[in-house]
Amino acid sequence: MGKGITYPLGFYASGINCGIKKNGKEDLSLIYSPSPCIASGSFTTNQFKSYSVLWSIKNIKNDIKAVLINSGNANACNGKENWDLTVRLIEELALKLKIDKNSILFSSTGIIGERLPYEKIINGFDRLIENLSPQNNILAAKGIMTTDTFPKEYEINTGISGRKKEVFIGGMAKGSGMINPNMATMLCFITTDAVIDKKALDIALKEAVDESFNMITVDNDTSTNDSVIILANGLARNKTIHIDSPEFDIFCNSLKKLCIELAKKIASDGEGSSKFIEVNVNGGWCKKDVRKVAKKVCGSLLVKTAISGANPNWGRIVAAIGSTNARIDMKNIEVKICGITVFKGEPVECDKEKLIKLMENKEIKIEIDLKRGNFSATAYGCDLTEDYVRINKEYS
Amino acid sequence: MGKGITYPLGFYASGINCGIKKNGKEDLSLIYSPSPCIASGSFTTNQFKSYSVLWSIKNIKNDIKAVLINSGNANACNGKENWDLTVRLIEELALKLKIDKNSILFSSTGIIGERLPYEKIINGFDRLIENLSPQNNILAAKGIMTTDTFPKEYEINTGISGRKKEVFIGGMAKGSGMINPNMATMLCFITTDAVIDKKALDIALKEAVDESFNMITVDNDTSTNDSVIILANGLARNKTIHIDSPEFDIFCNSLKKLCIELAKKIASDGEGSSKFIEVNVNGGWCKKDVRKVAKKVCGSLLVKTAISGANPNWGRIVAAIGSTNARIDMKNIEVKICGITVFKGEPVECDKEKLIKLMENKEIKIEIDLKRGNFSATAYGCDLTEDYVRINKEYS
Repeated sequence: MGKGITYPLGFYASGINCGIKKNGKEDLSLIYSPSPCIASGSFTTNQFKSYSVLWSIKNIKNDIKAVLINSGNANACNGKENWDLTVRLIEELALKLKIDKNSILFSSTGIIGERLPYEKIINGFDRLIENLSPQNNILAAKGIMTTDTFPKEYEINTGISGRKKEVFIGGMAKGSGMINPNMATMLCFITTDAVIDKKALDIALKEAVDESFNMITVDNDTSTNDSVIILANGLARNKTIHIDSPEFDIFCNSLKKLCIELAKKIASDGEGSSKFIEVNVNGGWCKKDVRKVAKKVCGSLLVKTAISGANPNWGRIVAAIGSTNARIDMKNIEVKICGITVFKGEPVECDKEKLIKLMENKEIKIEIDLKRGNFSATAYGCDLTEDYVRINKEYS
Repeated sequence: MGKGITYPLGFYASGINCGIKKNGKEDLSLIYSPSPCIASGSFTTNQFKSYSVLWSIKNIKNDIKAVLINSGNANACNGKENWDLTVRLIEELALKLKIDKNSILFSSTGIIGERLPYEKIINGFDRLIENLSPQNNILAAKGIMTTDTFPKEYEINTGISGRKKEVFIGGMAKGSGMINPNMATMLCFITTDAVIDKKALDIALKEAVDESFNMITVDNDTSTNDSVIILANGLARNKTIHIDSPEFDIFCNSLKKLCIELAKKIASDGEGSSKFIEVNVNGGWCKKDVRKVAKKVCGSLLVKTAISGANPNWGRIVAAIGSTNARIDMKNIEVKICGITVFKGEPVECDKEKLIKLMENKEIKIEIDLKRGNFSATAYGCDLTEDYVRINKEYS
């Protein structure tokens, strides 16, 4: 079992059921660091942000000590009295934790348009706080789940030494509907005991999110609640990481690796999905082109259903590539499915029986070489199954 | 039974099985006008256009006498020998019809990446031509179908008088996968006996396509084969319609109405769909905003599955509106589902039982008022069902 968000020094976690989920499963989580943290966040671009997101955006610049998360209710599009409820809720938690209310962040995920279950959450605070422990990371990871089938955690050693200890990073995430294209919520919470300045943390998070979570979504179809938050409490006592420190790249790469691993877990747990899809695009003219092609192919409903049925209909992949405005030329393009070349400027004869057999695997890799330049990108997704439809017909 | 493409004077149609479809159903259609036609076309923006589309783009400026259409094979991404096959095929048809090869247009729809079934099509020409008749519009409409469950035809009287007769417009279309977002092919062929100049015909077609077929697709995810073609043979002998003729607006409105009716038929026949969805957006700041919002809501997978399950989860509609960059303000927005107001700046209490009952209907209307201006737009779509997934797993 991983240690997730409590892997770095000085972070405590908790997760309980406060009565929002009727089945008794965890629905309220808390991350707590007695040492104040530098924080950075990447929040939804949706114009209708949840009140929880609005609260967090307002406070992310402060020294942060706690993050409260509820599942089962999105606290979005539910009328402005819920802003007042949000503020009162956080004030109540601040009193209980004996910290400043502006040092608390808040995230929510669940159904849109219903009143924040203020009383249930308030009544859970005592148990939630009693429950705080460096061992309860898994309960916190469960408390943020909605239709996820498993909790998602990851932790990593950066190799950066501090006076007290090596710098660690830990994280937990929850997935989002079929992800791609998605309107359901993606949440991720990351902790680190690094000493790092605010600007370096902002840049490191932005780059990591671009290569990971932003490669599992498409078309800026973000939910009202999407959030990625990182907290750095500095307890490793390393030399402060600035953007021009030699350790900055190392930190960035570790954070990126952690975010990619969590993104893959999210993609592989898409609602009703039976397969994980990875689309590698190489040889692009520019970064934008390769990202566009990777996401378009990975997000094509026809490609997703073909993969679900182990149907080697590569024409759908080529058509998806052509539907972008990337700089491409059909005669240069090479497409491989599960390592088998199916298209190279024109159709390539291949062993179809073997390909179908390979496509029955749980992990499908599509490789596209545009042969126009040196840029590459990878997108992550899952197949589209009858179960996705069933789950989303019944959600509310 | 409608008259479709043979409703205007002087158009002949034909449809036969030439052996591409194994089940004996029509797979080869011909539209023929002995009188040469002014033509206009709207073709896919996909970078990998089928050889049939490339042929038609090359010749659309000419006087046109015939349009050949095959289903079951897309003639796309299948290697450049298929361009030669395409040219030879058209030359053969030109010989048989005793017309110039450059007066023939060509469309294809079906599986991508397979060799054009040149011999089968050539061998069908004699029967195809013998079969030409003003009564065989329905056979032609069947010959362009792929996964469509019914042929789609419409015809309209414009009210514009000519020396010979009133100007008529007729059309036939085929649908495309789930349409939205789609990579499958949408084809539409329109005939008219109007006398109209090329520029007026181009503008009329562009406007009609924008309000109809372009409102059933999303994100420019066009297939390799999408085409809308109109032919005008002038046999009504009306006074030539220019863009400043009083009849121009009348012609435009009739053409738009015909295209919208065909677009609705396509949307209602989305693969595996059980319901037709219409999204009206009013009160927009500009045309672009209302089109964007209408298409985003109509194309949201979560909205589509909610409608499939008669699930009154309006939060998904509001979140889809917010995910666009349209000029909106939540406190002004009003949303109605099946005539019942569910959101007006904040949630509105409504009779949920009644709403669920109404959502069990086959036609679902969503009305959105942005209250920011005077623009409006309508998008057409269908719900997402388990059957869509099943059909597309097995397609090839």
